[in-house]
Amino acid sequence: MTLANSAAHAPTVDDVVAAHAALRARRPLVQALTNTVSTNFVANVLLSAGASPAMVDNPEEAALFAGIADGVLINLGTPTAAQVQSMRLAAAAAQKAGKPWVLDPIAAGALPWRGGLAAELLRFKPAVVRGNASEIIGLAGLGGGARGVDSSADAADAVPAARDLLVHAAAVSASGPVDHAVGRVDGQIVLVKVGGGSALLPRVTATGCSLGALVAAYAAVSPDPFTGLVAAHVHFAVAAELAEAKAKRPGSFATAFVDALDAVDEDSLRAQAKIGTAAPIG
Amino acid sequence: MTLANSAAHAPTVDDVVAAHAALRARRPLVQALTNTVSTNFVANVLLSAGASPAMVDNPEEAALFAGIADGVLINLGTPTAAQVQSMRLAAAAAQKAGKPWVLDPIAAGALPWRGGLAAELLRFKPAVVRGNASEIIGLAGLGGGARGVDSSADAADAVPAARDLLVHAAAVSASGPVDHAVGRVDGQIVLVKVGGGSALLPRVTATGCSLGALVAAYAAVSPDPFTGLVAAHVHFAVAAELAEAKAKRPGSFATAFVDALDAVDEDSLRAQAKIGTAAPIG
Amino acid sequence: MTLANSAAHAPTVDDVVAAHAALRARRPLVQALTNTVSTNFVANVLLSAGASPAMVDNPEEAALFAGIADGVLINLGTPTAAQVQSMRLAAAAAQKAGKPWVLDPIAAGALPWRGGLAAELLRFKPAVVRGNASEIIGLAGLGGGARGVDSSADAADAVPAARDLLVHAAAVSASGPVDHAVGRVDGQIVLVKVGGGSALLPRVTATGCSLGALVAAYAAVSPDPFTGLVAAHVHFAVAAELAEAKAKRPGSFATAFVDALDAVDEDSLRAQAKIGTAAPIG
Repeated sequence: MTLANSAAHAPTVDDVVAAHAALRARRPLVQALTNTVSTNFVANVLLSAGASPAMVDNPEEAALFAGIADGVLINLGTPTAAQVQSMRLAAAAAQKAGKPWVLDPIAAGALPWRGGLAAELLRFKPAVVRGNASEIIGLAGLGGGARGVDSSADAADAVPAARDLLVHAAAVSASGPVDHAVGRVDGQIVLVKVGGGSALLPRVTATGCSLGALVAAYAAVSPDPFTGLVAAHVHFAVAAELAEAKAKRPGSFATAFVDALDAVDEDSLRAQAKIGTAAPIG
Repeated sequence: MTLANSAAHAPTVDDVVAAHAALRARRPLVQALTNTVSTNFVANVLLSAGASPAMVDNPEEAALFAGIADGVLINLGTPTAAQVQSMRLAAAAAQKAGKPWVLDPIAAGALPWRGGLAAELLRFKPAVVRGNASEIIGLAGLGGGARGVDSSADAADAVPAARDLLVHAAAVSASGPVDHAVGRVDGQIVLVKVGGGSALLPRVTATGCSLGALVAAYAAVSPDPFTGLVAAHVHFAVAAELAEAKAKRPGSFATAFVDALDAVDEDSLRAQAKIGTAAPIG
Repeated sequence: MTLANSAAHAPTVDDVVAAHAALRARRPLVQALTNTVSTNFVANVLLSAGASPAMVDNPEEAALFAGIADGVLINLGTPTAAQVQSMRLAAAAAQKAGKPWVLDPIAAGALPWRGGLAAELLRFKPAVVRGNASEIIGLAGLGGGARGVDSSADAADAVPAARDLLVHAAAVSASGPVDHAVGRVDGQIVLVKVGGGSALLPRVTATGCSLGALVAAYAAVSPDPFTGLVAAHVHFAVAAELAEAKAKRPGSFATAFVDALDAVDEDSLRAQAKIGTAAPIG
């Protein structure tokens, strides 16, 4: 399918519920080119949430597989030379095949070499760019500077940068205690905030990476990338709340979180989704 | 030791119990050349089940280490150029040293490049080929076509392909809700089905990969590869049942499964092994 | 800061408590160049214990990042050609910038190629070398010979080798049921033993690797590497005891251990630290 670049209306909880139902019904195949820290967790998050993962990241097969997959994640965490080659091939193939792909520009603001790579990949028109505030700001070239993979900026600070990145991507989000997602609705640029989640999420490695993968899964089954992006953030945040109700420390929280991604259903989405009123931002 | 290519009799629960006792007593060293998604889980599965893992997969050391290890796993999940070189070296060294090695031809049916690699590695005579039905069918050249790492075929459908692969390997299995294993018994080709397990296994990434590694461990301590293959499938299936009794969702199931691999003992094997009557298949 | 190469006095529980408080207050950024088996677990151990991980291990960025990070881990578990290049660059950059770096010479005693690499890296003057007994003995060139990553020697046997390695490093430890750490105190070489821990630790993969990373974190916030090394061993051992009180098998123990690294506080350190009396060893 070809995704609309503009949503018909700002994503609501009904849209999230519909996207979640589509995820479970269609179980999209997500090709993840991701870092060594996250591969296992990303795959388990996708499986538990309701998607199907495949980590095909070698140059011999990356482009071919982007044509087979329903969505693609490209995460710059620990790029090898071969992976970089594969990222270019997979992004180009996904663009050509009309498959949504997600760019997670880890530490793009802090490290110039990968910043350049991230900027280069933008020309393949990702459906979504997802990062933390420092990464979004860094990628948009507004300065910033993150300490490794942690964000030292607030997600709200990244909104202008996210808006700027809409030249390249259909939707952009900055993760934080309140996630900030921007996209086009009926041709207008709109900000949607997603609350909830858990303070334990950043205490577990690769949670951000796995959110990027879940965005790719949702983008593959949603009418447009912005709706998919918001749906992924909401599924993630609700699961984190369910997990925090069961576990208070990082190890057991990680396990409970994977369980909760599976447990999330229409009822918990409707009861716990914290989607702010969409605000036009010009 | 040199493994017999033909089992003296079809593997029974007594043989599984004996192989399990040998595993615990000898704690075989398994060299795993495996994908980035599975390395951590494969190592923990081996440790918990009673073996000793080592992930030596660089070209400088892969052949040397195959001579030190008791068994070798070669898994095609995310092959880098260096790993492919190491796979050739390790397979050749294992064959030369008479060490059993296991080929896990992930997605070999779906992706021609790795299909060619898998076919090439067959000339080093693996003790066992283990995959899902689509992979076994794909590798045997009977067509098929899997969607990434998932199997879209039933394990029973893969029996003719598995039988054909006995030209290259001493034993072959296709995993599924009921696992199908074929090997030679007293010169005759025989099918043994292993039931049990859990529907949660395919909801956790790298469970198939870790089964391949456990097969290498069991092949190293069993009188023949077919017995080792069946013993690994049974240990795995019984552990999955024990885990499912404690955990109903993927995250906590994965943890319970690693615990259960440790907990499996003679009593649980005798009480829960589901080994079908061996059937000659010509 | 520049670390003193010699501690003012042998590390006591008060020093460990102070180092732990500094870890929690400063949350040091640890760059980990580590093996594929351990990346996820190392990152989660650092996050849970109170540090911040970043796995920057590509040649394009490894040296730059060593200047940004507070401490560096170099672990030889599964070295790729690019990682080896990065290890040289990061070690040199860390030395130049006065950042403490830790060498974990996995299997250096058993495999000559990586033994050579480990020996070469010593010229960049690690703050700490941490390994199991066989690895420390192997690296010091005193013979030995480990079976993969397991240690076949007792930690006490490694003390002469550890002492010899003080030519290159400020402090050296050999892990075991009782950890043996050597360093200089007021110019004299001293042995400190750290007891406690859990027999389940070696049943979980990458626990040793994650201890090496924790040593890098503590070295970054301690007055000298020897104090940081002892503090990391104590934090690790106390957490293992807390975890074993909650979980008796490897899967659930691993989860409980990550939780316990977070739970360790001044009270548990004072109640459970098992630091032997420092003994001069000439």
